[in-house]
Amino acid sequence: MPVESFPEASRLGVVVTLDEGRSDPEASLTDLVRLVADGMERVNATILSRTGSDVAMIPEVANHLIASGGKRLRPILTLACADLCGYGSGDGAVKLAAAVEFMHTATLLHDDVVDESDMRRGRVAARIKWGNEASVLVGDFLLGQAFRMMVEVGSLRALDILSAAATVIAEGEVMQLTAAKNTETSEDEYLAVIRGKTAELFAAACEVGPVLSQRPEAEQAACRAYGMNLGIAFQLIDDVLDYGGTSAALGKNVGDDFREGKITLPIVLALRRGSDEERAFWRRTLEREDLGEGDLEQALAILRRHRALDETIERAHHYGMMAREALAPFPNGPMKSALLQVVDFCIARAH
Amino acid sequence: MPVESFPEASRLGVVVTLDEGRSDPEASLTDLVRLVADGMERVNATILSRTGSDVAMIPEVANHLIASGGKRLRPILTLACADLCGYGSGDGAVKLAAAVEFMHTATLLHDDVVDESDMRRGRVAARIKWGNEASVLVGDFLLGQAFRMMVEVGSLRALDILSAAATVIAEGEVMQLTAAKNTETSEDEYLAVIRGKTAELFAAACEVGPVLSQRPEAEQAACRAYGMNLGIAFQLIDDVLDYGGTSAALGKNVGDDFREGKITLPIVLALRRGSDEERAFWRRTLEREDLGEGDLEQALAILRRHRALDETIERAHHYGMMAREALAPFPNGPMKSALLQVVDFCIARAH
Repeated sequence: MPVESFPEASRLGVVVTLDEGRSDPEASLTDLVRLVADGMERVNATILSRTGSDVAMIPEVANHLIASGGKRLRPILTLACADLCGYGSGDGAVKLAAAVEFMHTATLLHDDVVDESDMRRGRVAARIKWGNEASVLVGDFLLGQAFRMMVEVGSLRALDILSAAATVIAEGEVMQLTAAKNTETSEDEYLAVIRGKTAELFAAACEVGPVLSQRPEAEQAACRAYGMNLGIAFQLIDDVLDYGGTSAALGKNVGDDFREGKITLPIVLALRRGSDEERAFWRRTLEREDLGEGDLEQALAILRRHRALDETIERAHHYGMMAREALAPFPNGPMKSALLQVVDFCIARAH
Repeated sequence: MPVESFPEASRLGVVVTLDEGRSDPEASLTDLVRLVADGMERVNATILSRTGSDVAMIPEVANHLIASGGKRLRPILTLACADLCGYGSGDGAVKLAAAVEFMHTATLLHDDVVDESDMRRGRVAARIKWGNEASVLVGDFLLGQAFRMMVEVGSLRALDILSAAATVIAEGEVMQLTAAKNTETSEDEYLAVIRGKTAELFAAACEVGPVLSQRPEAEQAACRAYGMNLGIAFQLIDDVLDYGGTSAALGKNVGDDFREGKITLPIVLALRRGSDEERAFWRRTLEREDLGEGDLEQALAILRRHRALDETIERAHHYGMMAREALAPFPNGPMKSALLQVVDFCIARAH
């Protein structure tokens, strides 16, 4: 995508496009973060106050995860899409943004129990520190608080979108359980999983923005399509990052998906193209979880041989392009420009 | 309570009062079940259709628990309170009743993970058959579906009540985690736990009834108070039943709470009255979970010595009376009469 199509971006002095290949991923998020900074300050205050409870363990567990950072990309998108559609950053957007982050946090807490994870965001997982029980129940508490905030906003349409998202996310996760360790998983099946478990919340987070200012359905659909495609691209890059991205150096936490037997797109692609011997390797390591010394290196070598990581990034580009195009109906401006850059941010992380 | 005050009950040929002490607990539920039978048929159809999903594991897991019975007391209460307040059994009540049952089922699925239970309603627990993951995620799916049905009904007040209930239930469960194995737990602390984990959903299930027909706040508050006090009585009797009730014979599953180190009201009462030697016994068995042959029998002997089960039943009577009194503002009629009998049903189970 040529820089000329981003006059605002150049004017603001932030020119980061993926095609240059040397961009700093964080830089492409800078504009958006700055544009929603006031709203996010109120979102963060809301998050803090709504994790409060007389039951001391609840804020402890919730804040262990919430305070450990994360970019808060989903609530940022809610504020940005509300603003893009003329809502500004009124209370409704702030509460829905906080609700979206609570839904995300609840999912992470429940995921840790499902995946039996020991680490999350570089800290020991809540389930290790407080037990599976606390992770399940504090997740439930946060889901309840998310719905309470939506009810306070009073938009039945926003409630409809976010409650539907809650079921679709759970469906995606269950689908992933079923697909896990199954080396017969197809690319379509894998896409259905990540649409549910990741992209649906991105889509809902964006869609509720225009709903607040009662914008026409076409704008709601446009924001939803932006979020959905961005979410798919985001997850595909996450899958690539789990194998260390395209850099040669192996960082920390590389190979978590491999060790958990998770079938992600790079594996699906490598399986489709692989030899019988390679397929036997994947069946042993992923289906039977019979892992030994050197297996991760072997997996990476097979992925490289079939360009599986590169092609997963290409897929992410495709969805990124669709996310960009979804915003076409909106007039140019700093917010639209910043939302377009987020697509670059999501993809550039892989390099 | 004298039989004369239930003219409808006598007319219908069902005279069951606790004071007679020889009642069949199920009989006191018969009237209510018959009065809401048409609505419950639609609730059951709704439950069946809303557990549907393209992801086959979801209806499998959900129906394993839902089809295993349970009296569906909570959705019955929603229909009954809606009818009591003149709503009849319109679609709104049916959907809210199904939503209430889904919230309850989600709680049971998550509880099994929390308690590491092997059995539920006489069947192997879902977590044993499909794993903790499936229990957590299908619970999340059902919670999402519950909220979708509430949104379809479109009452923000009902949404407010039920989403607040979702957080209070989770708070109650976390409180129980904190209190678990703590022999210093006071009666007040224990009551706070069961208000949250059990009584709140009874209260919300009843309160949304009058909300549907936009009845005055006083009637909403009356139905809520009925449900809350009924729920407390119900849980206290459950606690007694876990020690085999007041019958001498020891049935199946007696002592589950004891083996899990759960501090319930009979234990709280026995601890307060016990000797140092007895307190040492409870600390060993409940706090340190150091259990041996004959310990359950010993526990029962101590509970009997201090009349702890009988006094827990007396407490249940107290809350049952408050539940009955809460319905005073409503004119007499078959539905009110049936709701009064439910109080007897909940308490008579202990005999």
